[in-house]
Amino acid sequence: MTQEDNKQELQDRLDALNAQITKQGSHVRQLKKDGIADAIGEAVEQLQALKLEAATLQDKLQAGETQFNRKSFDDLILRKMFVIPSFEIHGGVKGLFDLGPPACALKAAMIDMWRKHFVLAENMLEMECTCLTPQVVLKTSGHVDRFTDLMVKDPATGECFRADKLLEDAIDDLIEKNPTMPNAEKEEHLKIQRQADAFSPTELDELLVKYNCKGPSGEAYSPSFPFNLMFQTSIGPEGTAVGYLRPETAQGLFVNFRRLLDLNAGKTPFAAAQIGLGFRNEIAPRSGLLRVREFCMGEIEHFVNPNDKSHPNFASVAGKELVLFGRDDQLGSGKTKTVAIGEAVKSGLVNNETLGYFMARTQLYMEKIGMDPKRLRFRQHLTTEMAHYATDCWDLEIQSSYGWVECVGHADRACYDLEVHSKATKTPMVATEKVDPPVGIEYAKIKFDRKLLGQAFKQDQRIVSGLLDGLAEDWKNFEPIATALDTDGKTTVDGFEITKEMVSWTKSSKKVHEVKFTPSVIEPSFGMGRILYSLLEHSFYTREGDEQRTVMRFNPQVAPQKCAVFPISSNAECNAVVDEIAADLMDSDLATRVDKSSAALGRRYARTDELGVPFAVTVDFETLKDNTVTLRERDSMKQVRLPKSEITPLLMRIVHGKLNWDAVTKKYPLVQVDEGDGVVAESTEKGPTVVETTSRGRFRRPAPQN
Amino acid sequence: MTQEDNKQELQDRLDALNAQITKQGSHVRQLKKDGIADAIGEAVEQLQALKLEAATLQDKLQAGETQFNRKSFDDLILRKMFVIPSFEIHGGVKGLFDLGPPACALKAAMIDMWRKHFVLAENMLEMECTCLTPQVVLKTSGHVDRFTDLMVKDPATGECFRADKLLEDAIDDLIEKNPTMPNAEKEEHLKIQRQADAFSPTELDELLVKYNCKGPSGEAYSPSFPFNLMFQTSIGPEGTAVGYLRPETAQGLFVNFRRLLDLNAGKTPFAAAQIGLGFRNEIAPRSGLLRVREFCMGEIEHFVNPNDKSHPNFASVAGKELVLFGRDDQLGSGKTKTVAIGEAVKSGLVNNETLGYFMARTQLYMEKIGMDPKRLRFRQHLTTEMAHYATDCWDLEIQSSYGWVECVGHADRACYDLEVHSKATKTPMVATEKVDPPVGIEYAKIKFDRKLLGQAFKQDQRIVSGLLDGLAEDWKNFEPIATALDTDGKTTVDGFEITKEMVSWTKSSKKVHEVKFTPSVIEPSFGMGRILYSLLEHSFYTREGDEQRTVMRFNPQVAPQKCAVFPISSNAECNAVVDEIAADLMDSDLATRVDKSSAALGRRYARTDELGVPFAVTVDFETLKDNTVTLRERDSMKQVRLPKSEITPLLMRIVHGKLNWDAVTKKYPLVQVDEGDGVVAESTEKGPTVVETTSRGRFRRPAPQN
Repeated sequence: MTQEDNKQELQDRLDALNAQITKQGSHVRQLKKDGIADAIGEAVEQLQALKLEAATLQDKLQAGETQFNRKSFDDLILRKMFVIPSFEIHGGVKGLFDLGPPACALKAAMIDMWRKHFVLAENMLEMECTCLTPQVVLKTSGHVDRFTDLMVKDPATGECFRADKLLEDAIDDLIEKNPTMPNAEKEEHLKIQRQADAFSPTELDELLVKYNCKGPSGEAYSPSFPFNLMFQTSIGPEGTAVGYLRPETAQGLFVNFRRLLDLNAGKTPFAAAQIGLGFRNEIAPRSGLLRVREFCMGEIEHFVNPNDKSHPNFASVAGKELVLFGRDDQLGSGKTKTVAIGEAVKSGLVNNETLGYFMARTQLYMEKIGMDPKRLRFRQHLTTEMAHYATDCWDLEIQSSYGWVECVGHADRACYDLEVHSKATKTPMVATEKVDPPVGIEYAKIKFDRKLLGQAFKQDQRIVSGLLDGLAEDWKNFEPIATALDTDGKTTVDGFEITKEMVSWTKSSKKVHEVKFTPSVIEPSFGMGRILYSLLEHSFYTREGDEQRTVMRFNPQVAPQKCAVFPISSNAECNAVVDEIAADLMDSDLATRVDKSSAALGRRYARTDELGVPFAVTVDFETLKDNTVTLRERDSMKQVRLPKSEITPLLMRIVHGKLNWDAVTKKYPLVQVDEGDGVVAESTEKGPTVVETTSRGRFRRPAPQN
Repeated sequence: MTQEDNKQELQDRLDALNAQITKQGSHVRQLKKDGIADAIGEAVEQLQALKLEAATLQDKLQAGETQFNRKSFDDLILRKMFVIPSFEIHGGVKGLFDLGPPACALKAAMIDMWRKHFVLAENMLEMECTCLTPQVVLKTSGHVDRFTDLMVKDPATGECFRADKLLEDAIDDLIEKNPTMPNAEKEEHLKIQRQADAFSPTELDELLVKYNCKGPSGEAYSPSFPFNLMFQTSIGPEGTAVGYLRPETAQGLFVNFRRLLDLNAGKTPFAAAQIGLGFRNEIAPRSGLLRVREFCMGEIEHFVNPNDKSHPNFASVAGKELVLFGRDDQLGSGKTKTVAIGEAVKSGLVNNETLGYFMARTQLYMEKIGMDPKRLRFRQHLTTEMAHYATDCWDLEIQSSYGWVECVGHADRACYDLEVHSKATKTPMVATEKVDPPVGIEYAKIKFDRKLLGQAFKQDQRIVSGLLDGLAEDWKNFEPIATALDTDGKTTVDGFEITKEMVSWTKSSKKVHEVKFTPSVIEPSFGMGRILYSLLEHSFYTREGDEQRTVMRFNPQVAPQKCAVFPISSNAECNAVVDEIAADLMDSDLATRVDKSSAALGRRYARTDELGVPFAVTVDFETLKDNTVTLRERDSMKQVRLPKSEITPLLMRIVHGKLNWDAVTKKYPLVQVDEGDGVVAESTEKGPTVVETTSRGRFRRPAPQN
């Protein structure tokens, strides 16, 4: 058995095991939810045994693999100022990072491509809403309530923990350690465990004492207190208006839905987009850019008729193959499938065309910016993971040294967002669509007793009649009210008590040429910071045979700097040509790095490799004779010689994706150069070579071929 | 006398008056500062009389001018979603605005040009630092202390006011209303006024009662409380670490100075740059984008040897003429001067080359994005306006309907910023520069009594010896310590008490090849939101003879959409060509607007005018015969006819600034079209015209000229 076969077998066993773990985890959750206490203890034990086995397998598998060289990567990232801890000289702040010059340019290029790939290509309506958000908006969206956890501190270290998780863990431990515990006693504990997130702070504090929960320092925890993941502030000089930093950009688009629809001449489907900052006060931010407290997001909200989620451009991506990790596969084989998105939608694996369309477009975007396609997959949310209103969700996960990390969510959120804002603000948030031929609808023809209404609701009577008019438009919505009024003589609508005397109705039907609907929202949500970090890892490698020479393989489109220009010697004549070439490149907006230092040429090439500069032009003594320069490509380390005047137009075409390096090597004669430091480019010349010796290096150059 | 002459005379008188006001204001401030009480009352009265006179003149002047049509402008801005109040359906929040699709694209173009004009062109080191900032950083920079004002509220309305300003105004009022007040009594009041910003909250509360200060509602104010303009939050789950949203982006660059210098291979001068959000909790935000609570800034920190503020590229801008409003002119003639920046630096009006260089580059940037050069000026800060450490400051002011508004600050901040962070973190923040020939310096050769030092400072002894070593490098810095030790036997350095016994010294001199210095910071700081708003105003106009037809004259480089494409008829053949042209434009990243609606062509042109789309292509029946289309330019409303295949390359060249419309009209035959709505393009054809009639409009087209 070869090493490769062996690895494959290990991987297969690990995949199968992971599927079993997912299934067992789901089973345990279901048991807890259903309160089937007898079975839970055993199920949890099985789950832990499976996890242990998987961990052992994982270790075996990794031992045989080349490890990601984190030390070397981290050193490069910090030394070249890709990413650095914020406020470092003042001691730093966990979860806050600055982007230095190369990452800043990389991000600008990524965002520029995102804007062109999504916003421009599809005429999306891009907005820029504020980060500061008043409480009412996030109360409406559910963030004020749902982002709150009860926390305790270890008084000795100040470390914080989620109180409910501590309680759950303590009960699991207790049951595990007492396998002979009588069932009745076990059930009592499990009943407490199931309610862990519903206790008041005082109740939780008592329970933590009862279960003898202690912090890592050995001391008892502090009393528990509520902690919301949103950063809170107050807006305005009064100091009374609570505001938050938005935890996502989406809400700004939802609240602007009506204006956006107007701007789009009332037509659906259409998409709005936003690129901007989000903020989450993470409890325990980890290193790297994967879990930080301030991050850049790119979000798209595609508004579509819930009864027709087809996409006009779906055909253009239907053949695109994606690596899908569906719900059933996660619970079954543990294996991903490579499927054309057209097939996945047809088979129902992916819920609808619009969702599938965006998944394919995301994959294309990732490939465009240079992400390794072998380390991308789409994982479907399990039913237990999704919000109750969501129809289907697929996360694009990117594999990095931290494992598979969710970087882009694709969620069909149904009508939830527009409905909550509509209800909270009493603002209709509906779109209309012409129907041809007209369709028959059932509605309630209603009539108010205006006098009674006026007496009961005074200045609110218009709101009440508006509410009822709205419901009456569709008999399905009005029927429960009609039934309640018939049965009880009264009912409550949005807090207003309506009596039978106030309104009379007849069930009727009519033909309509237009239907009203609350659009569904399909939301691709990009964590730009996570994507940036993953791209840094995917781009990093060391030269074969020289672990010290680290390289970033950014493609020319996203590379922070496009070209380096060096003089082979520091004489004035060479320097003048360097300046001339650099100025010409910069004039075409190609970011250029000039290095006139006295370092050996190989050293200077190595410096550009670390920054991922794809091309380097060297002005040598040949240049002074015939105006030709060498052009070196970073990854192949191959060089061609060409007239200096052709550099800028050539790089312009490469950077704009109209030409690749292969074509360049076919057009111009290859030159072979010893870069020093023991690294020599592969010998791949096509013709006989002429060896020239200059004062600074040995050049071999193919003889002219014609 | 013509109306124009009359206007000029009024303007001259107003300018002179404004200069007198500035001078008198400065005089009053000086009197207050010096405590020369007797003269203040009279000086204030004179100032108020001058202000009244100026206001009257201003009214006269404006009456004769065409007013900026704010109603029409505001309507367009809101209707087309350039700028809209944030969270509108939830009631909005003062001082928060969203950018809708056209402004969002405009801003992206402005920022792209900023990055190319400043960052790329000069190899600046761009960073992206976080908005969340720990307290220690802003304590060090002075923001925690200096951004605090004492506030009071009108209890009836909740409106907030600065308490010290209320007190000052109340005293002014009292003195004004009592012209016969005895000098002794007057002096008592003025003494209180001079200390207004130094009272404690309790003292201020008592004084507001004493001076009978009441809110607009007639009720007494609430007790005063301190109010910091920074938004405060807490970072981390502990809830104890105070953080703020940064009020400016600059601090992130200062704290990264050492890493930036390393990345620049230790060389100065160099510049760092940052584009990002700033936040200020303004007390009374006004309408528009001029005073908001969340805003985009672009800041450059140029680090330079304080002894040599020349700029290597100064010659490239020396001839550029700027409108300068120097300190002396503000206090004297009240008139601006148009001066070449080279002259202004030579004469000393502008302090140094680097400051002047950035002023000229800012002017060039403003012209590039399409700002009206006639409404730009640079105003120098008066000595009383500048921070004590600043050397010279010039604000680029842009004239809008709100008057002259500061949009870009250009400040020579000397070494202040680096020094405060260096001191607070005990981190050296110095650069070195080779000197050739070597220079002689005087220093203190010092020797410590390590034993005494160890006994006195224990683990801090290294900090103490480091501090003294640092000071000893330059005799000028060490001399005061030497004197104090000689005289008193002891002195205090950074809180540490040093005695004579701990250290001995000799004044020495040596030749050095390298000098150390704390760089000066020259800081251009751009308020991108204010610039965006000003650009909207400068771009807005109504067609002559038709006030209803509003136009945005964005230049092709910054225009949110570059081209519109219309079919003259909604038949399938025309539509297919429209789609083909639009796809081709989009493929070259030219944002395109397709309008296939049945609206009249003139109406569709008018819609593109409102969005500032510079070009519109119309596919007509002619197109179906010979593949030519018409291309209309927005401002001249002139049209040419050209092959459809030439549209994309032509617009690419125009958008990238390589071709202008004049050249287009020379290359292709002009077509004259009645746009309907009574608007007809000027007749400017060069040859005889052929009149054609189509089913949808009357086209006149020059006969072929060859």
